Amino acid sequence: MENTKLKVFIPFLYLVWSDDLLTQKEHLVLKKFISVQNWLKDDEKVALISQLSISNAPSRFTMTNWKSEINTALEHNPEARSLFDIVIELSNNGSAISEFATNFIQLENDLGILGEDVISNFKKNVITFTSTHQSDPTFEISKLTQILDGEQSEIIQKVKSIITRPEFAYETSTDTAIYREKVYQWCKILARENLGNMAYPKKYGGGENIADYFAIMETLSYHDLSLVIKFGVQFGLWGMSIHSLGTEKHYQKYLKDIGTLKLPGCFAMTETNHGSNVKGLETTATYNHQNKTFVINTPHEKAQKEYIGNAAIHGQMATVFAKLIINEVDYGVNAFVVPLRNQNNQILNGIIIKDCGLKMGLNGVDNGTISFDNVIIPKDNMLDRFASVNEQGKFESPIPSDNRRFFTMLGTLVGGRIGIPRSALAAAKSGLTIAIQYSDKRKQFGPEGGEEVSILNYRMHQRRLFPLLAKTYAIHFALQYVTNRFIKRTDLEMPEIEALAAGMKAYSTWNTTATLQECREACGGKGYLSENRIGVLKSDTEIYTTFEGDNTVLMQLVAKNRLSEFRKTYGKMDAMGIISYVYENTKTVIAEKNPIITRKTDEAHLLDATFHLSAFEYREKTILASAAKRLKKLIDGGLEPYDAFNVVQHQMIDVAQAYLDRVVLEQFIIAIDKFEDSKSKDIVNKLSQLYALSLLDKNKGWYLEDGYLEAIKTKAIRKMVNQLCWELRPEAISLVKAFAIPDSCLSAPIAL
Amino acid sequence: MENTKLKVFIPFLYLVWSDDLLTQKEHLVLKKFISVQNWLKDDEKVALISQLSISNAPSRFTMTNWKSEINTALEHNPEARSLFDIVIELSNNGSAISEFATNFIQLENDLGILGEDVISNFKKNVITFTSTHQSDPTFEISKLTQILDGEQSEIIQKVKSIITRPEFAYETSTDTAIYREKVYQWCKILARENLGNMAYPKKYGGGENIADYFAIMETLSYHDLSLVIKFGVQFGLWGMSIHSLGTEKHYQKYLKDIGTLKLPGCFAMTETNHGSNVKGLETTATYNHQNKTFVINTPHEKAQKEYIGNAAIHGQMATVFAKLIINEVDYGVNAFVVPLRNQNNQILNGIIIKDCGLKMGLNGVDNGTISFDNVIIPKDNMLDRFASVNEQGKFESPIPSDNRRFFTMLGTLVGGRIGIPRSALAAAKSGLTIAIQYSDKRKQFGPEGGEEVSILNYRMHQRRLFPLLAKTYAIHFALQYVTNRFIKRTDLEMPEIEALAAGMKAYSTWNTTATLQECREACGGKGYLSENRIGVLKSDTEIYTTFEGDNTVLMQLVAKNRLSEFRKTYGKMDAMGIISYVYENTKTVIAEKNPIITRKTDEAHLLDATFHLSAFEYREKTILASAAKRLKKLIDGGLEPYDAFNVVQHQMIDVAQAYLDRVVLEQFIIAIDKFEDSKSKDIVNKLSQLYALSLLDKNKGWYLEDGYLEAIKTKAIRKMVNQLCWELRPEAISLVKAFAIPDSCLSAPIAL
Repeated sequence: MENTKLKVFIPFLYLVWSDDLLTQKEHLVLKKFISVQNWLKDDEKVALISQLSISNAPSRFTMTNWKSEINTALEHNPEARSLFDIVIELSNNGSAISEFATNFIQLENDLGILGEDVISNFKKNVITFTSTHQSDPTFEISKLTQILDGEQSEIIQKVKSIITRPEFAYETSTDTAIYREKVYQWCKILARENLGNMAYPKKYGGGENIADYFAIMETLSYHDLSLVIKFGVQFGLWGMSIHSLGTEKHYQKYLKDIGTLKLPGCFAMTETNHGSNVKGLETTATYNHQNKTFVINTPHEKAQKEYIGNAAIHGQMATVFAKLIINEVDYGVNAFVVPLRNQNNQILNGIIIKDCGLKMGLNGVDNGTISFDNVIIPKDNMLDRFASVNEQGKFESPIPSDNRRFFTMLGTLVGGRIGIPRSALAAAKSGLTIAIQYSDKRKQFGPEGGEEVSILNYRMHQRRLFPLLAKTYAIHFALQYVTNRFIKRTDLEMPEIEALAAGMKAYSTWNTTATLQECREACGGKGYLSENRIGVLKSDTEIYTTFEGDNTVLMQLVAKNRLSEFRKTYGKMDAMGIISYVYENTKTVIAEKNPIITRKTDEAHLLDATFHLSAFEYREKTILASAAKRLKKLIDGGLEPYDAFNVVQHQMIDVAQAYLDRVVLEQFIIAIDKFEDSKSKDIVNKLSQLYALSLLDKNKGWYLEDGYLEAIKTKAIRKMVNQLCWELRPEAISLVKAFAIPDSCLSAPIAL
Repeated sequence: MENTKLKVFIPFLYLVWSDDLLTQKEHLVLKKFISVQNWLKDDEKVALISQLSISNAPSRFTMTNWKSEINTALEHNPEARSLFDIVIELSNNGSAISEFATNFIQLENDLGILGEDVISNFKKNVITFTSTHQSDPTFEISKLTQILDGEQSEIIQKVKSIITRPEFAYETSTDTAIYREKVYQWCKILARENLGNMAYPKKYGGGENIADYFAIMETLSYHDLSLVIKFGVQFGLWGMSIHSLGTEKHYQKYLKDIGTLKLPGCFAMTETNHGSNVKGLETTATYNHQNKTFVINTPHEKAQKEYIGNAAIHGQMATVFAKLIINEVDYGVNAFVVPLRNQNNQILNGIIIKDCGLKMGLNGVDNGTISFDNVIIPKDNMLDRFASVNEQGKFESPIPSDNRRFFTMLGTLVGGRIGIPRSALAAAKSGLTIAIQYSDKRKQFGPEGGEEVSILNYRMHQRRLFPLLAKTYAIHFALQYVTNRFIKRTDLEMPEIEALAAGMKAYSTWNTTATLQECREACGGKGYLSENRIGVLKSDTEIYTTFEGDNTVLMQLVAKNRLSEFRKTYGKMDAMGIISYVYENTKTVIAEKNPIITRKTDEAHLLDATFHLSAFEYREKTILASAAKRLKKLIDGGLEPYDAFNVVQHQMIDVAQAYLDRVVLEQFIIAIDKFEDSKSKDIVNKLSQLYALSLLDKNKGWYLEDGYLEAIKTKAIRKMVNQLCWELRPEAISLVKAFAIPDSCLSAPIAL
């Protein structure tokens, strides 16, 4: 190829023979191009076209020469932006070639070549900002940890000091019996350290500190989740059912032994046929006034108690929920203490226990089914805080409605709906810590000729993980808020707090499922190995969206609570009523709906917390009003309310979702406002912006339908989400390190 | 309460004492209301208010009486729609009360009561259409099965007849060693039945039937997924690497023994440091011309082969991908057959194998790491279809570019990217069959006083499962299409088919992950028990989104292929070029953008396949053009192409997604068009409408931003999605039964 005229084809020949995206089709395109170039002689055409025959491929040596010719050309003209710029170099800037610029550029197009892309592939050691981005935190990790731990800092330290002891090394056996026993022994250690009875009254050996109890649940969740659930069953469900539903005589008899784990027990509510609809439980407790006993009975197989933790192996007693029957009158569901095993762990007469067998996760917890074959228990075993049988054998209760009494009883157990989302939160933190630390170290691909790049520098990888990191931070503060509301609750606030706890249980556990899914995928094959723990975190928390109330059912409860509040405020609605409802407390909304504002896209506005919160509130109120209006319309139109609620079920979930989004954002903003360390404040504030904007982006369909946002603004929001992710990249490692999860708990080799 | 004036308060008194949504606050509201009613005497007020004191709750007996008074009133006036209607009945239609209608209605509002809802709670045996909806299929299951199975019906039957034999009962041991051995024995049975070698040439004992091979992979996936993967590693990856990359001498030496499983082997490509970026593999194969051998070596720990199936226990040989070095020149990655173990299963000298240990799933597959310590293999062990070392010790290849040669080699292995999405499809079908059959039988909640209702009658439950059912059907036909394209491929079509297979691998496996997640949650606690198999389906398929190419990386490959096609067609773009591109082949689009059409919401239009496909095509083309435009703008603005691609990475995923959505819908419509059985055609057509509309609903943000749809239409689409779900409810059981998954494979007690 000495002929300069032929030499100018080198870049194209090299490309069609080397680029894996160019194919046989491109050979044909180039062949055709050559054949119509009038400035080439016929023999030149033949020589060139012969270089394109599949049966006459250039040698690897020829390719290497071509490549070095191109490299030389590029050294002469580093500003080259298209293949034609190289062509000109190769032709020694021959003006003859310049005439054919259009032809060559057309050829580049026909081959589908992006000139700059191809050229950058020839360059050595390209510096790109994608490659050079890296960790470069601007705040002190320990200061943020202090803010996250808050007043519970001391108990969190204590729990960490225990679960990092050698005896808490993870159990690796796949033998369920060994695993269950290990978890049981761990629980005993925790009991000895006075962690189990933390919420019980001091009078019965407890710590009388509910805030610390929840912090214990959350911190333990950095370790094995079977341990947390077994711990929660024993000290939370079993112990707290005695404390919440029983009276002094029960406290005296049981609480101390429960707190020391001398008396392992169960919480036996769910039945095979009644999970979500617990009001329909069928187990019976029939009162016999002659000997002042109850007969506990399972009427048929599908009324057995199911999934009961601690039942299969260790439980010696259970709080059993059963319909109280006195003289053939059904007084609704009440709670009774029923012995299951003696102290030698032998199952008692009339008790039938089956093992639930292997589960998807949490195999360190011994779940079982329990049936009762006319088991007799003394009258004192009725947990009688809310209802009792008096000396005359008559039913007595301060709450006359069976329904209401039952829901009041359930209300006292709402603590479980705080412990679970907090445990889920910790699992999400573990997953994010593993995935983000690994993604920082893991390198894959890079600019041609350059080094491989940390996968955390890829925008898509950031988009997958950082909005979840932001949401997890947001939920942290929201759950602190719910915990505080619960601890300081008054009777008047109970319906709101119950709805809030139910909703946040769904919100946090769904976040954990989604987060761990993304973390697993982000870690690729390494994420699938058990040693890296994402798999077990995923499998163990999978049931969190179901137990303590199926999330979808809970979301409907939340929505019903919102609707009921709405009706109280606005009553029979007319159009004006709805409008005033939506506008009330959304002071900026009229300004927002102004076309200039619905299109406002400057950075200061997009990052403004007031804008975020107004948008969230607006959505919350509008969706609620619209659901209420639709329900009313359906019922006015003759639908049975039960059918009407079914028709709008999908909207009901949105009502709850929008409410929770607003609460979480609001609490996040309030919490950040109180940060004293300005550097962590700046960064966590960015997380809050990312949380808000990524939700606005997710819900943009709704905002556009409504007209609250216009397309120009939703597009600007999407860009801002990407930008925030990029800006958070240097802070990401420090943000997960601030969770301060002990290395022995993370354990994953890829994270250490 | 004999006084009629007092009697009218019964409904309110009953309600504040019974309704679990009314609280202390409502007591206060009612108390206040009573105190300001001028038509009550002071002593009447006192009597009423005393009934509201918490310390003076009515007895359960009083409550029962109140309730029966209300019931009687309702029998007199079954048309009552508000509490005030009952009040009028109780007052014996006293005109005195009617005067106070406004007061009482205001009270209802203040209490947040929905009158109709409360009243329906008093009615007995309410008939609601939610309760009476049920299975009532309109088509013959077997006819649909026949359509789904198509030409592979016979081999599918054969595979089913084998995997339903008693020896294929699922292994329940948690001991990995036992499970692995069982899976290996199952593979031997399948080999004996000539299923493993189905795709190999007849000359080497095979069936020479690739279509049947894929049908085998898919049908086996109704059974244990470890079995499918072990089967795929042996006969697909190991066997097909010999067949695709080797030549006659290798076929003669290995293929028959691979097909009978006499020679178990591995496919050793991935290394710890190089998973997605396989071009960067670091294992070396150094040629020694003196004794005509290669030395295979692992240069450092992180260059070990990782996650290699069949390596930990059974593999005797492996196809090893390594950089070929001749005289210190690196000729890029090539493939070599390397013995790992002798026939007594002893590991050979220089081979270091470690067990990957427990994984999240697929524990019946023995994945391991392999390192090579200067292992010597004969020259003949190089798989030399695309490159070889000649008699003179020189490198030879018909493909001069190392890069291109490597991607050509990978291209021949694209079959794996068809087997995996088809296996994933089967797992999604299993999950849907279990979840939908259980949801039909499972009853929970119901109208007050009525029976509990099948949870499949709840709209939200339908919304969670049916769009996924529709998508799974859609993917079924799309994968049939990809398989056919692959079998009938020409070289010219290869880039398109490779992109299609890569894309559908991501599309199908992500669908499976999402579907099984929803199925698990839809089955509640039962879905968590291992016996019901959703857990193991979930855990086993979790890695499908990673192996055979990380989905996110594959989607970028697809997008790059689309961009390259786009450039070939449109070259340097100007605004008109893009517009003409978008409009080309989207003939209806100009009509669609007409305001009357963007708002068109009549049922016939919303259900019209032409509308669906136009909308999908419009989105595909617009997103592609916009990504191309943005990339060009960024590069023109001076960004390195590598950085520019990173900036638009999020959009690249959308490009691929929109392309795949369109292909899947298009193939679904084409397939349905060929149905001969008109009854199944009608129903599957509904699934296609649901698939299309639920995706339009999901992407409504984009369509609204673009202006292709207006809010009135996106709202109508959402309603139509709900309506289609409701209409499909009676067909749902038959639609999953048409998958015809053997009961012994489903195995889940809740589904049988």
